[in-house]
Amino acid sequence: MNFSRLIKNCSIPSRWLLANNIRYQSSSAAQNLIQVDINEETGVSVVSLNRKPVNSLSLELFKDFCGVMDDLEREKVRGMVLKSSCDNVFSSGLDITELYPNPSEERFEAFWLWFQESWLKLYASSFPTVAFVNGHAPAGGCVFAISCEYRLMLPYYKIGLNEAPVGIVATEWVMNSLRAVLPGKNAERLLTSGRLLDTQEAFDIGLIDQIVNNEEEAMARSEEFFATFDNVPKLARALTKQVYRKNDLNQLIKNRSSDAKQFLNHILRPETQKIIGSYFKSLKDRKKD
Amino acid sequence: MNFSRLIKNCSIPSRWLLANNIRYQSSSAAQNLIQVDINEETGVSVVSLNRKPVNSLSLELFKDFCGVMDDLEREKVRGMVLKSSCDNVFSSGLDITELYPNPSEERFEAFWLWFQESWLKLYASSFPTVAFVNGHAPAGGCVFAISCEYRLMLPYYKIGLNEAPVGIVATEWVMNSLRAVLPGKNAERLLTSGRLLDTQEAFDIGLIDQIVNNEEEAMARSEEFFATFDNVPKLARALTKQVYRKNDLNQLIKNRSSDAKQFLNHILRPETQKIIGSYFKSLKDRKKD
Amino acid sequence: MNFSRLIKNCSIPSRWLLANNIRYQSSSAAQNLIQVDINEETGVSVVSLNRKPVNSLSLELFKDFCGVMDDLEREKVRGMVLKSSCDNVFSSGLDITELYPNPSEERFEAFWLWFQESWLKLYASSFPTVAFVNGHAPAGGCVFAISCEYRLMLPYYKIGLNEAPVGIVATEWVMNSLRAVLPGKNAERLLTSGRLLDTQEAFDIGLIDQIVNNEEEAMARSEEFFATFDNVPKLARALTKQVYRKNDLNQLIKNRSSDAKQFLNHILRPETQKIIGSYFKSLKDRKKD
Repeated sequence: MNFSRLIKNCSIPSRWLLANNIRYQSSSAAQNLIQVDINEETGVSVVSLNRKPVNSLSLELFKDFCGVMDDLEREKVRGMVLKSSCDNVFSSGLDITELYPNPSEERFEAFWLWFQESWLKLYASSFPTVAFVNGHAPAGGCVFAISCEYRLMLPYYKIGLNEAPVGIVATEWVMNSLRAVLPGKNAERLLTSGRLLDTQEAFDIGLIDQIVNNEEEAMARSEEFFATFDNVPKLARALTKQVYRKNDLNQLIKNRSSDAKQFLNHILRPETQKIIGSYFKSLKDRKKD
Repeated sequence: MNFSRLIKNCSIPSRWLLANNIRYQSSSAAQNLIQVDINEETGVSVVSLNRKPVNSLSLELFKDFCGVMDDLEREKVRGMVLKSSCDNVFSSGLDITELYPNPSEERFEAFWLWFQESWLKLYASSFPTVAFVNGHAPAGGCVFAISCEYRLMLPYYKIGLNEAPVGIVATEWVMNSLRAVLPGKNAERLLTSGRLLDTQEAFDIGLIDQIVNNEEEAMARSEEFFATFDNVPKLARALTKQVYRKNDLNQLIKNRSSDAKQFLNHILRPETQKIIGSYFKSLKDRKKD
Repeated sequence: MNFSRLIKNCSIPSRWLLANNIRYQSSSAAQNLIQVDINEETGVSVVSLNRKPVNSLSLELFKDFCGVMDDLEREKVRGMVLKSSCDNVFSSGLDITELYPNPSEERFEAFWLWFQESWLKLYASSFPTVAFVNGHAPAGGCVFAISCEYRLMLPYYKIGLNEAPVGIVATEWVMNSLRAVLPGKNAERLLTSGRLLDTQEAFDIGLIDQIVNNEEEAMARSEEFFATFDNVPKLARALTKQVYRKNDLNQLIKNRSSDAKQFLNHILRPETQKIIGSYFKSLKDRKKD
């Protein structure tokens, strides 16, 4: 419960950043990759992932997402709704071109650190967060959803952590994010089978909190969720959330470098590259049809 | 699973006590702050919090509670039922005069150590414990309830951890006590919103095990709970409970001093004092009506 | 997420083994204590505990079980179904003659290390595991069941961790295995009361995943479970399971020697020996009837 240390640690230590030659720099297309729409009346901020066509998660998208999160922290928004502005897809997950073919260590490390940073900023955000899953949300798309505090979803889409079928082992902080939503055996079975659930199944199992039929409903439900915090001083709410999530946060904060190295080692195994390659080819073939 | 060390550590180390000039001393009004009624026939002990009018939790109440728990351990009671002898209130939580205005470090540290000690003795008690929530149980009142092994509640009262709305961040062992009863997102949302649930909601979510309509029913249900242990040797039962709860206990046992310091620092922030002050004033104004 | 270290550690370190004069050696009656039946068509392996009359778990049974698990890992089976070939009993738990009267330190330590090793190999197995609980499964029998990934059970039998009523405290990795299946208070109450649940109760609480009426149904349900992994590369599935179960595995891996010593100390207490002795006598008396 060392509050100040926890919060301070929830960003890449500047010394380490310099050592890795990564520095936050708004991407030139920042306004395009992430759209932010703050409702001045309600204080609610709607953040839309906007990397057409399927919101695949690239280094630049993560950087811009972190920039947006920093802005929202400064502006002390009342709440954030995370959605997609792509058709039918919330996010397709990590951009495969960051993983295949054999990424350079330097690029991959930067990519992974900004993925970590995005998760830390979302998972530990001081303001309440709602995911409005308005399209398919496999793998990294699901990670964004389960890192929020509340989940709404449109019918007829799919959500899940399907890393395993693509030969990838979800990293520990991703598993812990799922375990915090779905304790027990359900989380293990979702992870080991990599099964994608449809909206109704996701609701039945508790992965999703409410099914909504359109954006209007989603905004009304989000408003109800944010209203439960209206009588709570912002600092007390933020610290309560961060202390509650402390173990999950610290597991990553204490292991950022080794987490990146281990994932890279796993990705660079020839058999992993081969499976990702086949998957990549199937995606391209599908696109041509 | 170092049994003897675990149990030995479940009380304030004598060296540390001396250093802080705290020593257990039965308060002169001991019989009044906590009432104990042992049924010689059944071996069940009924412990009633009895600090009128609302069982607000003071240093003296915690000291006396610890003394009672020590007595019950020595007498090897069959089970304990914890209830209130105040009208309509199980316990209103920590006595605000211990927190406001700006408590002295010395008094606060003693207060907090005896709160910790009370929790440790209750959470690790060798005998089975039932909370009969026979009135409202906000904040510290709820902490007493969730530290027991089983919870009964009368209809039409409220229970919850409403620290956040009063500007206070529940300490980690309080969060862990809740997490042990309500895994997953429900515990987080109760904590961050500070919402108080009515009896029916508390039952639906699993915070309460059974709703009872009067004290007679409560005693009958408690008896049924204690009877499930009648064939279990006392030592094996006690160690099983303590090993099962070991991680929660150790989190505090290893951090008693820093836990007290951090909470004090948080309480002494001007903004926290201000919020508690407003709340205190609203309580006094209400009393006058 | 140090995969290779995790897996390497999931067996008794050879240095330690030599120091204790334990070496894996197939028992002469190996084919009798554990029966293995691999279906060449489906790739599913059926492993039957076969120590008549009640599959009480002895050092030799554990050794043979470990040998079988090693074989299955080498053969990369598609899945394993664990069942009993004794009438009406899945397994009666640890062989009491290993615990009473006062076991020698040397024998007990070897016995316990092979129990640990059996659990590690089952809990961390790379292939999917189903327990077909085709008879009573108290204590150690239940441990085998909850260490699998999925549980099927015939009606009208009993399952649970009834160590406490026999004066024994379940060890921490056994408690953690249960907690992974039944989070929250249900696990604590099962452990402290030592209550055995019948099949329907076990299903209602989530301890069992499905009730089946005969072996044919059990094999069909197992096949459905294994089929959920057919599109998942074996390495990714194995690592996902092992990372998900990492904390439970490491708790034992880091404390094997102290875990054995503590359990032995507990077993050798005169009061524990006395309770086990009475229980043992009651079992023998029952047999004579």
